Amino acid sequence: MTQTSETNRRIVLASRPKGAPSPEDFRLEQAPVPTPKSGEVLLRSVYLSLDPYMRGRMSDAPSYAAPVEIDAVMVGATVSRVVASEHPDYAEGDWVLAYSGWQDYALSDGTGLTPLGKAPTNPSYTLGILGMPGFTAYMGLLDIGKPKAGETLVVAAATGPVGATVGQIGKIKGCRVVGVAGGAEKCRHAVEVQGFDACIDHYADDFAEQLAKACPQGIDIYFENVGGKVFDAVLPLLNTAARIPVCGLISYYNATSLPEGPDRTAVLMRNILTKRLTIKGFIIFDDYGHRYNEFAKDMTEWLSAGKIQYREQIVDGLENAPKAFMGLLEGKNFGKLVIRVGADS
Amino acid sequence: MTQTSETNRRIVLASRPKGAPSPEDFRLEQAPVPTPKSGEVLLRSVYLSLDPYMRGRMSDAPSYAAPVEIDAVMVGATVSRVVASEHPDYAEGDWVLAYSGWQDYALSDGTGLTPLGKAPTNPSYTLGILGMPGFTAYMGLLDIGKPKAGETLVVAAATGPVGATVGQIGKIKGCRVVGVAGGAEKCRHAVEVQGFDACIDHYADDFAEQLAKACPQGIDIYFENVGGKVFDAVLPLLNTAARIPVCGLISYYNATSLPEGPDRTAVLMRNILTKRLTIKGFIIFDDYGHRYNEFAKDMTEWLSAGKIQYREQIVDGLENAPKAFMGLLEGKNFGKLVIRVGADS
Repeated sequence: MTQTSETNRRIVLASRPKGAPSPEDFRLEQAPVPTPKSGEVLLRSVYLSLDPYMRGRMSDAPSYAAPVEIDAVMVGATVSRVVASEHPDYAEGDWVLAYSGWQDYALSDGTGLTPLGKAPTNPSYTLGILGMPGFTAYMGLLDIGKPKAGETLVVAAATGPVGATVGQIGKIKGCRVVGVAGGAEKCRHAVEVQGFDACIDHYADDFAEQLAKACPQGIDIYFENVGGKVFDAVLPLLNTAARIPVCGLISYYNATSLPEGPDRTAVLMRNILTKRLTIKGFIIFDDYGHRYNEFAKDMTEWLSAGKIQYREQIVDGLENAPKAFMGLLEGKNFGKLVIRVGADS
Repeated sequence: MTQTSETNRRIVLASRPKGAPSPEDFRLEQAPVPTPKSGEVLLRSVYLSLDPYMRGRMSDAPSYAAPVEIDAVMVGATVSRVVASEHPDYAEGDWVLAYSGWQDYALSDGTGLTPLGKAPTNPSYTLGILGMPGFTAYMGLLDIGKPKAGETLVVAAATGPVGATVGQIGKIKGCRVVGVAGGAEKCRHAVEVQGFDACIDHYADDFAEQLAKACPQGIDIYFENVGGKVFDAVLPLLNTAARIPVCGLISYYNATSLPEGPDRTAVLMRNILTKRLTIKGFIIFDDYGHRYNEFAKDMTEWLSAGKIQYREQIVDGLENAPKAFMGLLEGKNFGKLVIRVGADS
C-alpha cells in the first residue's frame, strides 16, 4: 500500500500501551486528502522521523508535552513537499521541515514550518544530524557537558543519532570518548566509523567492569539518554565536578513498575553532594531554540569537512512505522530511524 | 572541668559510629599544652563550631574529604586567641579563625588561619553567618538557585545556620520563601523573626499536603540540605526549570542501610528530564573559595542594616560537645550550634 494522491493514510493512537507498545496500540486509517483554505498549504510527507520521545506522547502521565489523544494521529516531524499552496510564502514543489505526524498529508498555516528550498541535499538530514537529534547532542554536550580536552566522555546509545553525534563532537573537542551500545556490530561501528576511543557492549555480562577499564581516569561527562543499568555502571566512575546532561531515559519508557528495592535515591543524592555533580535535564527547543543557527553553522561545516559521520536507517512505507518504532524502543535500529512515506519527486 | 593553662583537653574519635554516633564513639583526653617552635603560634580555642559535615568525617566511606583517624582529634573550625607567637604575623592576644578541632590548644604555622584582629565584634559569627554556613547559603542560593523576584523558594532546616540564611537572602531577592523545620517553635521563629512567608513542621502527619498548600505556584528553587521525606514532598511540586543546590543531606548521615524499595531512582531521573531540572552539589570552599570577599561584603551590609537575623545556640564546655553534636544530627539544636570552649578574655 503506497502513497497516492487520492487518500490520506494516517496512523492513529488506538490505545495507550501498558509497557511496550504493541501493534494493537496503532491503527492505520484512510481519510480524504484535505484541501487548503486561504493562507494554508497542503503538505505531502516524504520522510517521517521516529524518535524515542514519541513513547512519552502515547502515555497520559504528566510530562513536558501534552499526550496524543486516543484516535488522534501520532505526532512526529516530517520532511514534506508542498502539493498545493494558498499561502504567499510557499509554492508547489517546495520542501519543508514540518510536524505533520504519521500520515501522508497535512494542512499547515505556516506555523512551525521551516523552508528547505527547492532542491535540498539530503533533506532527511533535517530530521537527524541537522535537526532535533543533532541539535540535542550539540547543546547538551557543549552547554551542559562543557567538554575540555583530555576529559573522558561516556555516551550511551552510541550509534543512535544523538549518541553518535555527542561522541563525535567530543572527539572534535579533544575528549577521550567511550561509547556504550548494544552488540558487537554497533560497537565496531562506533570505534571504526565514528572514531570513538572505545565502545562497550551493554549486553556483556561484565559490562560494568569493561566500562571501568575503558575509563581509567574516571568519567568527567556522562551524556544521559538511556538510564537504567548504564547509569548504574557510570555513577561510581564519575569524577569530582562531573556533568550529566539528561536528554532521554529510553530504558525506562516501557517500564510499568519501578524496580525492586532498596530505594537507591539516597545513593544518587549522596554522589551528587560528595562529588559535586551537576545533573541537568533539557528539552532542546524549549531550552535552546534561540541557538539553532549556531548549531547549524558548526554542524554544516563539520559534515562537509568529513569530521562527523552520520548513519540513517531508512524504512520504506508508512505502514511499517509502528513495527519500526517498537524496535527503536528495544534498540533494534542502527542509526537514525526514518520512514520513507512517499516518493521524493 | 574547665579550660586551664596547664592541660590540653581534647576529644578524639574513639570508634566509627554505626548509625547515630553514641557517647562511646568519642573520648575526652588530657595532653600537655604544646609549645610553639619558630614560625608557629599557640592557639587557645574560645569557640568551636559544630556542623553536620563532621558526621561524614567520622566514617571511612569515600567522601570529598579524608576521614578523621581513630584516636585523632575531631576536626572543626574554631575561633581562637593567640597565646604565644613565634610567627611574625601574629601577636599574643590576636583573634583568629582557625581549624583547631575539638580541643583547647593547637599549634599552627599560619596555614589556613584568618586574622580577626584585636577586638572583633561577635567573633563567633565567623563560624556561622559570616563563615562557612553563611557562605554556603549565599553562593548556593545565588549562583546555583538563581532566584528571581516572585519565584517560590523552599528551604529545609529553616532555622539552622544555612537554611535561615538561604531564606532571608531569598526574601531580599523578592522570593516567596517557605521553610521546613521540626516543631512549632522553630516554625514560628522562621516566620516571625526570619520573615519567611510560611514554615511547615515536618513532624506533621499531613506535612506533604501542608507544603503543597504553602506553594500554590509550585517550587522554583529547593535548597537541599536534608534529603529524605522533605525531598520526597518537594519533588512533585517542582516547576519546570527548577534549580536544586545540594549542600547537605543530614537525614541520610546516620543511615546504616538504604530504605526499602521500590528503587525510585528512575522517578528522580524522570523528573529531572521532564521538568528540565538542574541539580548541583557543591562544597563551598572547593567551588567558591575565590568569591568569599563578595559574600563577606554583602553579608556584613545586610547584618548591619538588620536585613538578616541570626540565631546562635551556644553550649558551654568542650566536654559537652559530643552530646550537642549528637543532638544536632537529630535536629535538636535551634540556631547555629557553637561550643564555648574557653573564656573570651
